[in-house]
Amino acid sequence: MLGAKSVIREMFMYGKERAAQIGYENVFDYSLGNPSVPCPPQFTQAMVDLLQNSEPVALHGYCPSQGDPTFRSAVAQSISHRFGLPYEQKHIFPTTGAAGAIAHAIRAVTTPGDEVITFAPFFPEYIHYVNKTGADLKVVPPDTEDFQINFDALETFLNPSVKAVLINTPNNPTGAVYTARTLERLAGLLTQKSREYGHTIFLVSDEPYREIVFAGAEHPYPAAFYPNTLTCYSFSKSLSLPGERLGYVAVHPQCEEGDILVDVMAQISRGIGHNCPPSIIQLACARCLEVTSDLSVYETNMNLLYNKLTELGFAVKKPGGTFYIFPKALEEDSIAFCERAKQFDLLLVPADSFGCPGYFRMAYCIDTDKVRRSLPALEALAASYR
Amino acid sequence: MLGAKSVIREMFMYGKERAAQIGYENVFDYSLGNPSVPCPPQFTQAMVDLLQNSEPVALHGYCPSQGDPTFRSAVAQSISHRFGLPYEQKHIFPTTGAAGAIAHAIRAVTTPGDEVITFAPFFPEYIHYVNKTGADLKVVPPDTEDFQINFDALETFLNPSVKAVLINTPNNPTGAVYTARTLERLAGLLTQKSREYGHTIFLVSDEPYREIVFAGAEHPYPAAFYPNTLTCYSFSKSLSLPGERLGYVAVHPQCEEGDILVDVMAQISRGIGHNCPPSIIQLACARCLEVTSDLSVYETNMNLLYNKLTELGFAVKKPGGTFYIFPKALEEDSIAFCERAKQFDLLLVPADSFGCPGYFRMAYCIDTDKVRRSLPALEALAASYR
Repeated sequence: MLGAKSVIREMFMYGKERAAQIGYENVFDYSLGNPSVPCPPQFTQAMVDLLQNSEPVALHGYCPSQGDPTFRSAVAQSISHRFGLPYEQKHIFPTTGAAGAIAHAIRAVTTPGDEVITFAPFFPEYIHYVNKTGADLKVVPPDTEDFQINFDALETFLNPSVKAVLINTPNNPTGAVYTARTLERLAGLLTQKSREYGHTIFLVSDEPYREIVFAGAEHPYPAAFYPNTLTCYSFSKSLSLPGERLGYVAVHPQCEEGDILVDVMAQISRGIGHNCPPSIIQLACARCLEVTSDLSVYETNMNLLYNKLTELGFAVKKPGGTFYIFPKALEEDSIAFCERAKQFDLLLVPADSFGCPGYFRMAYCIDTDKVRRSLPALEALAASYR
Repeated sequence: MLGAKSVIREMFMYGKERAAQIGYENVFDYSLGNPSVPCPPQFTQAMVDLLQNSEPVALHGYCPSQGDPTFRSAVAQSISHRFGLPYEQKHIFPTTGAAGAIAHAIRAVTTPGDEVITFAPFFPEYIHYVNKTGADLKVVPPDTEDFQINFDALETFLNPSVKAVLINTPNNPTGAVYTARTLERLAGLLTQKSREYGHTIFLVSDEPYREIVFAGAEHPYPAAFYPNTLTCYSFSKSLSLPGERLGYVAVHPQCEEGDILVDVMAQISRGIGHNCPPSIIQLACARCLEVTSDLSVYETNMNLLYNKLTELGFAVKKPGGTFYIFPKALEEDSIAFCERAKQFDLLLVPADSFGCPGYFRMAYCIDTDKVRRSLPALEALAASYR
């Protein structure tokens, strides 16, 4: 019953051990996507205010199964305003982070044996979120040119068993942001195939990095292109609250069966013992929908790394967002490459488990000072290949 | 995909509607098990202190998949001391309330197709927690004499497909507390049958009402009687935090496979998108393990109701704990009885869905003043049957 351990967590645990030996400041740990900036002060203030000025029985009482109405309507209002779609409270289902959102969305729109398509490179936990529902995750090979969608490959994967397509933009691990052209083409294809197969193919759009987009990058809202979209969000990155486990599924107002999908997800929750994220976190985040942590450090770090990697001759696309960069390794075997990097105390994650061998991921959600100090290590690593 | 709605929640929603018509204070709502007393001030202080004096990145960061080490070791120490069993950090798995605890425990010790036994009357959500894992919940008929275990009936249910037995003590809905004699006999039977079948039958013990026990009631700790016990706990009732969704599974230190069961549950979590309860709630509760809300109101309410019900001729066992009482209805059809009670603005839950037709549940986690004011309504209801 014990599945394969996450390669990311393994690297992270190695980093902790190594830090105990040579000091935390000397380990250039690019393994884990854990935000490095504090939550905005508004979140702390909202929490303290709720604790000090609310009646505790009401504050900490049971939520309805569909989630806290205050949070749900605040989210609906915020994203309606921002994306121009008429979301209402009934379309919002609070979840334990994006993980819970994806697991619920997939369960809501598939039955065991259905196929779900995603695109390499992809966040490897998707295998668990999808396959544990009884559906079957199929991975379309990457578009290594731009890390958009390899449409030729996608067409060969579509068949009547496909009930959902799972995308992630801005993307972990590539940092790519899907363009309007990509989303239009995807929407067109899904509309056509839904008609052909006589059933809806749902789009499950995983967007925890929505707020981390860099200067000049276009970042369209996927649901605006395709009504049968379930948008999965998390406050882990935007408010730097990964441990507090709050996210949501937003069901597009014109989605097929859109009026009952939240009730379906609430029913699913009963069976997995999840029963709503914590009340106080929902109430505090409801007051922080228009703020984020100071996310500018990620762009600073990205530029430092992108420039150095390019200078050193790495093949690498400039990320449009997230806190990841995804260069090609300097040898074919990226696992061997990342093993060698350890000699320079650089902790990099080989992309084999992301479905894209030959590449590696750097999570640059660390201090800018440490990024700067890591550049000589990157130089030395590159030099070792000459 | 939309299953039957909970009869409890339906009655609760009716109560909200009725309160809008005649005023909240005039609806005697005994439907929902939502604690009526505030959390202890220590919890609020711990939360505020964490928010004001911790570094936010660490405070709100990702937990390890197995849960926060501070919380896990504090729980292990607290229950080791209290129950005399050598629990260690590795035996404690934090969950989203008892619901998450039961769902994870059942998934960890069964595979689809296995049978899980519980005892009527039982909390109807068990059907969802168990059957959604792929296992099959079998319900042993009640011991209506004492609401302990009907062992004659249990023996006929045991067979080689049974992998777990799920108990709940102090019990929802009866308020009964399993005696040492009951637990000894159960342990003996499970030990004998485990040997006979050549595999362990695990005991999953659901104990959210552990701290709500009344004067004179014996309340032994089930795991002390049987090593293959997974104890499921929640802070919802003891600290009045049902909305904050924190509980745990404690794996008995001598449990079969006890050293890996927490890792198994952490793996299961990955697949359902649960991934740990919120960090700050774990950290705050770790500081509140030796305190509870002021739970004395429940015993006051119980005595008022028990005395009145007895006086009115109801057949009713005196509860040993919880905030429930479980009388026999005044007609055979307890659904009709509870419908009639609505005429007196008494909201009672018929026990048909608890597997015990002919009885009803009253959740007396409400103001004592309201309990007192409801007594004439109970008198009028009883009088209507004369």
